[in-house]
Amino acid sequence: MIDVGIVGATGYTGAELLRLLSRHPAVRLRVVTSRSEAGRPVAELFPALRGCLDLKFSDPDSSALARCQAVFFATPHGSAMHMAPALLESGVKVIDLSADFRLRDPELFSRWYGLPHAAPARLETAVYGLAEINRAQIRNATLVACPGCYPTAVQLALFPLLEAGAIETEGLIADCKSGVSGAGREARIGSLFSEVADSFKAYSASGHRHLPEIEQGLRRAAGGEAVGLTFVPHLTPMIRGIHATVYARLRARPEAVQAIFENRYRDEPFVDVMPAGSHPETRSVRGANTCRMSWHPASDGRTLILLSVIDNLVKGASGQAVQCFNLMFGLPEVQALNAPPLSP
Amino acid sequence: MIDVGIVGATGYTGAELLRLLSRHPAVRLRVVTSRSEAGRPVAELFPALRGCLDLKFSDPDSSALARCQAVFFATPHGSAMHMAPALLESGVKVIDLSADFRLRDPELFSRWYGLPHAAPARLETAVYGLAEINRAQIRNATLVACPGCYPTAVQLALFPLLEAGAIETEGLIADCKSGVSGAGREARIGSLFSEVADSFKAYSASGHRHLPEIEQGLRRAAGGEAVGLTFVPHLTPMIRGIHATVYARLRARPEAVQAIFENRYRDEPFVDVMPAGSHPETRSVRGANTCRMSWHPASDGRTLILLSVIDNLVKGASGQAVQCFNLMFGLPEVQALNAPPLSP
Amino acid sequence: MIDVGIVGATGYTGAELLRLLSRHPAVRLRVVTSRSEAGRPVAELFPALRGCLDLKFSDPDSSALARCQAVFFATPHGSAMHMAPALLESGVKVIDLSADFRLRDPELFSRWYGLPHAAPARLETAVYGLAEINRAQIRNATLVACPGCYPTAVQLALFPLLEAGAIETEGLIADCKSGVSGAGREARIGSLFSEVADSFKAYSASGHRHLPEIEQGLRRAAGGEAVGLTFVPHLTPMIRGIHATVYARLRARPEAVQAIFENRYRDEPFVDVMPAGSHPETRSVRGANTCRMSWHPASDGRTLILLSVIDNLVKGASGQAVQCFNLMFGLPEVQALNAPPLSP
Amino acid sequence: MIDVGIVGATGYTGAELLRLLSRHPAVRLRVVTSRSEAGRPVAELFPALRGCLDLKFSDPDSSALARCQAVFFATPHGSAMHMAPALLESGVKVIDLSADFRLRDPELFSRWYGLPHAAPARLETAVYGLAEINRAQIRNATLVACPGCYPTAVQLALFPLLEAGAIETEGLIADCKSGVSGAGREARIGSLFSEVADSFKAYSASGHRHLPEIEQGLRRAAGGEAVGLTFVPHLTPMIRGIHATVYARLRARPEAVQAIFENRYRDEPFVDVMPAGSHPETRSVRGANTCRMSWHPASDGRTLILLSVIDNLVKGASGQAVQCFNLMFGLPEVQALNAPPLSP
Repeated sequence: MIDVGIVGATGYTGAELLRLLSRHPAVRLRVVTSRSEAGRPVAELFPALRGCLDLKFSDPDSSALARCQAVFFATPHGSAMHMAPALLESGVKVIDLSADFRLRDPELFSRWYGLPHAAPARLETAVYGLAEINRAQIRNATLVACPGCYPTAVQLALFPLLEAGAIETEGLIADCKSGVSGAGREARIGSLFSEVADSFKAYSASGHRHLPEIEQGLRRAAGGEAVGLTFVPHLTPMIRGIHATVYARLRARPEAVQAIFENRYRDEPFVDVMPAGSHPETRSVRGANTCRMSWHPASDGRTLILLSVIDNLVKGASGQAVQCFNLMFGLPEVQALNAPPLSP
Repeated sequence: MIDVGIVGATGYTGAELLRLLSRHPAVRLRVVTSRSEAGRPVAELFPALRGCLDLKFSDPDSSALARCQAVFFATPHGSAMHMAPALLESGVKVIDLSADFRLRDPELFSRWYGLPHAAPARLETAVYGLAEINRAQIRNATLVACPGCYPTAVQLALFPLLEAGAIETEGLIADCKSGVSGAGREARIGSLFSEVADSFKAYSASGHRHLPEIEQGLRRAAGGEAVGLTFVPHLTPMIRGIHATVYARLRARPEAVQAIFENRYRDEPFVDVMPAGSHPETRSVRGANTCRMSWHPASDGRTLILLSVIDNLVKGASGQAVQCFNLMFGLPEVQALNAPPLSP
Repeated sequence: MIDVGIVGATGYTGAELLRLLSRHPAVRLRVVTSRSEAGRPVAELFPALRGCLDLKFSDPDSSALARCQAVFFATPHGSAMHMAPALLESGVKVIDLSADFRLRDPELFSRWYGLPHAAPARLETAVYGLAEINRAQIRNATLVACPGCYPTAVQLALFPLLEAGAIETEGLIADCKSGVSGAGREARIGSLFSEVADSFKAYSASGHRHLPEIEQGLRRAAGGEAVGLTFVPHLTPMIRGIHATVYARLRARPEAVQAIFENRYRDEPFVDVMPAGSHPETRSVRGANTCRMSWHPASDGRTLILLSVIDNLVKGASGQAVQCFNLMFGLPEVQALNAPPLSP
Repeated sequence: MIDVGIVGATGYTGAELLRLLSRHPAVRLRVVTSRSEAGRPVAELFPALRGCLDLKFSDPDSSALARCQAVFFATPHGSAMHMAPALLESGVKVIDLSADFRLRDPELFSRWYGLPHAAPARLETAVYGLAEINRAQIRNATLVACPGCYPTAVQLALFPLLEAGAIETEGLIADCKSGVSGAGREARIGSLFSEVADSFKAYSASGHRHLPEIEQGLRRAAGGEAVGLTFVPHLTPMIRGIHATVYARLRARPEAVQAIFENRYRDEPFVDVMPAGSHPETRSVRGANTCRMSWHPASDGRTLILLSVIDNLVKGASGQAVQCFNLMFGLPEVQALNAPPLSP
């Protein structure tokens, strides 16, 4: 059994980690921290976990975290970069769900997140936790930076084509739609039911923090070539789910596309390449660590339409984190992640 | 491994059975029938099951059902009573999710369902599949009639108090609210998104088919005494979930209520008696086989308010059916039913 | 033209007042106050009002309010009782949408709202703004206390029967369901989309502030006799709407019920008695000042089921306030209130 | 008073016409036809209209339509082209909300709608009912073809820039999201609440019938030059609303964009150019005939992001039809269309 801690488990990604890890056969949950809820039973805050989990929140300053073998950070950005170094020095493996270690360039982090990076030296050893492109490095990592939700959906859709040189690297467009849980479990007027239900809107159209993260990943997939990406996130009245609609211009023939996807993801346990012409629905991955995707040719014969869906809290956050954890500890990659989606 | 068939798996309870049984370690799904979809891969109709299930729908007339050890009926009422007898004679154990074998009185069935009962002789041996009151009989049953969704939520709330004589048997009121999946996966204008979203209404207030079923169960819990129940179902804009708010007049002192519930359900794996004063939410049981309940005293000092929530597709249908199946085959009662709820 | 001010127009009832009054042919909106938003164009906070309204929020301390002929309070409880007296002395007519002047007994107010009443002398002259029972008094009032949303739906359903002595005054049950806008436009975790969407729950089952208000009104309708009411509010995942399901025991014959309702409300412009056996939907009054109701006999032959729906922000708050305003200023009662509901 | 008839008023656009026209001061609703509901009071099918409308559905074959001065067709495609010619010959002005007269080329109609055009000669005189580009022609028209919902949102966003030559005509992308009412009030499994709630998906990505309509309009705005457009519609879990996110490559400098929009739409009563950098929400036009739009520069300095929202049932259908009707009969263009949106 592996002793595991979670920092900041009062948000949605934290609650989702609790859901997944509470049934993980190789995990013993030892510490779940929250400054504001210290001392309170976890299942009191999250009644869905009554009977699944018998733990109380503890203070993040306790030494209990250092006695774990693995610690997940489900905190807002700006926390993990302060706390992770000491844990790493104690031999704890760290899986960070926040943005702190995603961007390799501390300047870029500072520009987009508005604060200096507190542990720039760790950025070199941090491994970007997208198993579909980094599996070997994740196995050997001690610090994994889990991808953002939008970057997961967009990169998985574009990697195969960029790697194959099958699309132009300029003029890429990612029109993304997210459920409201992506905005977190914070008291904000903009996330109230009566503000977002029965409505639809774009946000951060002039620049969202996931843009540099996606660009960094796409550039690597394109062999180092800079890519030109327009990324517009939207808020849709559902709880979970991301739907990425990605537009690219084809270099290859349309007939080649399906095989490129199927070959690239043939052995991936969590990527489902659907038959050409399918329309994946976000509910088809609700609660699951799966990314489903398909593609369509546009009528102009040049533009390719890619459709990619994930559950933002699972493959876009906590499930992906558990996937990385499984790899880091030599466990079966799918362990605790193979329950079917909940649909309808 | 137990060979299992499902009749009528194109509806929501059928899909939910597929979700639960596809990961059941003791089950081999052999036949999934649908007259209209025969020949089509199940995962084509339900893309959420892609990768979980590699079966095609087959015709219900095939002999394959008779070669199963257990057959679930997820059909509308009126089918199982025609097909079950032959299967039972072949030695197949039958778990019926429809209403066909719930009422012990064929006259009552005929009056509420508008057609004569085709197998009245089987009604005597059919066991009502509410393990919390019938566990021993279910273990020995060959034909189980799974309770309706409303009856499950209401009966579990009232059994302990009726058994203890702690409430009056007259003047009971069950004000129940259901998610839209309870109306089934049929093309009906009344279930369209644009008809029921952002709205709330009662339906069948003058009489709903679940009323005689609830009355039959409550009478038994009251030691054969007739009970007086008013039951009003409502439609609420959510997919899954039933919330029963039940009103009764206390004979006992309010101080005794919590202990009555806790003692009655102490060993029940799927009933969660919450602390007094709690307000259970349907999302806290989403996807799970759990019934959570709590109670409040009304300000008049006499009326008791009972709150009881289930997932109508799980504890209210398919999960309860699997619970019965586990009991009938000597398996651990919670097998394949212990994943935590999906919340948010 | 009547000069009108609104205090506290950043919430949902304030926004709804703006929607209704911006097209009121006899109203000139002069002042819209908000401490936090002072100086900001109203249409910037509420883009739906772009082009309908050319006003900025101003500070509530300004003297502009005193120069209005009517001032609406759309504030949380505890504000109007401090500000209204000075306005009344300046000759301003006050329509208060908060709870401050609803209860005639300052002790009762203090007990339920947790603070002493700041203007108990005004409670005697305040008129409860339910036109269907108080029309004449409202016409002559200078201070109107608009009813709460639940009390409106419940009282309109029960008044005719209590006045006619057609039901028992004990054992009344009001099982009410509200859309989330009833919780206000405040940043609270409990009102987040991801907390309340696709879920259903009761709240304040042990005692809600609208209980004494409803009891006060019912007692009056019952000719001063105390009534016994159990009131349980629930939260349902929709934006607007209240559905009250009320249970009472009949003294009269069921055959008499429809006529009692139709006679009582024959001339009421905003009460719609539907054909017996109807199931009113909240969407059928969305955006409208209408209360639709119907009734059903329960199967026990004694219990009566009443169904009553309103839009909590219109007939349950701002529409009702405009209705009172129209009466107070001798305008046609339906002015600015006769647009059809928005459905679907 | 103008005598008006509606053909096919049992769908959502028909119901919305009834809502708008029931309060139109210059309209006398004379005939509302429905083959399936003939003889039934309209307000029985649409309880929201109780008290607003005292009409029964009549058979579409009746001669009553020919005695109207204006007839609206709210039918599926394929009806108006059969019935309109006779009405036109009787001197009735026809406003068709269906697709029958939108495409000027009968071959194109036949290819996309799968049936030959029954009145190709009328296509030449039919006027495309987008007042913002065709106001003068609509005033003189006897047959108006109201634009589709998606085409309205997309064309209004692109017209100013195409007319000004400010964007390239190739590589246009319209990523559109629609509420479920766009799928109509027909009993289809795909539109059930439990199928589309809490989920998001694209549909018809390989080709949607609105594509040729949009292309026809854009080509005209571009001075006859062919445009290259990729159009992907999506279904989002809300009742009403369309959000178009349109991507184009700039020829002009970004600084010029806001002025191009403001100048183009300065006098338009139903187009709201928001401040640059805004994010219009569909709820801000709920129930209103308004199109709100704004734009953002993408980070690549070349791509322009256009955001455009309408209510699909109002500016995308019935409101636009009433706008055309007002123009055709010399009434104020905004008559019966100036109620503020319903938000929240």
